[in-house]
Amino acid sequence: MFASIPNYKEFYDETDVNKQGLECLRLLNEIICDFDKLLLKPKFSGIEKIKTIASTYMCASGLRPGKEDGAMDEKRTEEHNVTILVEFAIALMSILDSINRESFQRFRLRIGLNHGPVIAGVIGAQKPQYDIWSNTVNVASRMDSCGVMGRLQTTEHTAKILMAAGYECECRGMTYVKGKGNLVTYFVKTQFDGKL
Amino acid sequence: MFASIPNYKEFYDETDVNKQGLECLRLLNEIICDFDKLLLKPKFSGIEKIKTIASTYMCASGLRPGKEDGAMDEKRTEEHNVTILVEFAIALMSILDSINRESFQRFRLRIGLNHGPVIAGVIGAQKPQYDIWSNTVNVASRMDSCGVMGRLQTTEHTAKILMAAGYECECRGMTYVKGKGNLVTYFVKTQFDGKL
Repeated sequence: MFASIPNYKEFYDETDVNKQGLECLRLLNEIICDFDKLLLKPKFSGIEKIKTIASTYMCASGLRPGKEDGAMDEKRTEEHNVTILVEFAIALMSILDSINRESFQRFRLRIGLNHGPVIAGVIGAQKPQYDIWSNTVNVASRMDSCGVMGRLQTTEHTAKILMAAGYECECRGMTYVKGKGNLVTYFVKTQFDGKL
Repeated sequence: MFASIPNYKEFYDETDVNKQGLECLRLLNEIICDFDKLLLKPKFSGIEKIKTIASTYMCASGLRPGKEDGAMDEKRTEEHNVTILVEFAIALMSILDSINRESFQRFRLRIGLNHGPVIAGVIGAQKPQYDIWSNTVNVASRMDSCGVMGRLQTTEHTAKILMAAGYECECRGMTYVKGKGNLVTYFVKTQFDGKL
């Protein structure tokens, strides 16, 4: 899952580094730390934060180190891994909504979700960092970047799991995804639709 | 400075995760670890690796923590910080050239360089990571992404410092840089021009 605050850039991109820049990063740090705090909740214990890329929060669930040769997760586990990320996405929206009300800001969240196989590992000798790679990850990132403010966009195969689990999804139709062509995508309905 | 291997993507993007994916990441890890090893050389001790973003290596020189309110570097220091990154870029090219010959690959390097003020700090409570931000950083990244394979592209004000230091630079003319409009950019001449 990739969760972006695309309009955060407006706040720091062209500001005078010496004057307002640091203040803007302080606020971004507060937002990211609030997002991080969610991971301490027992229900989100299976979620692994991968990293932040500027104001984009990247995380995953169901990573099973050492089990790369094992059979696919059971259907129930797969459903759990996908739905817990949707719950996490809704929690992120709720936090940003609170921050907006407290700080009189208009930050908006745009989220992309996909599931499937990944490779996980650590790259580099200096500052090594755990990361994940695969077509699954690339498409998840595209679900964010080709998404809509305030909405959670997902692929068809992920939406099917969510709908089977009782989540309401709205077919967006064919969406052009750079490097992938036209894909059928869905928006997952949340209480923040049109609000964030 | 941002140094990318744009055609690395071809090797892992669409490969079968379970079969070749891991092998491709092993090779990327070897390349990045070889790049990292350069940082151990005394001449490159002032260079700070920031991170890798997929197959892009991001680093900086002249970061002076705690001196954010101080006067600008002296001209000599500024020149040193810029030229040492060019020397590092040439060393990266040399390493990739060796790897290509050893592994019968055709990896290519595309490098972008800029200098100016930045904000540095750590974002996040979970997996906090030291990073730098500013318009300077954004433009450096664009010098890479709008660059040319095998070449080191830089902004006009950075090229002026390099030319004063005896480096040969070739004016590329106006280059459209997304979000910045048209900028005059330069290529720094190296022995790898047209080779990598």
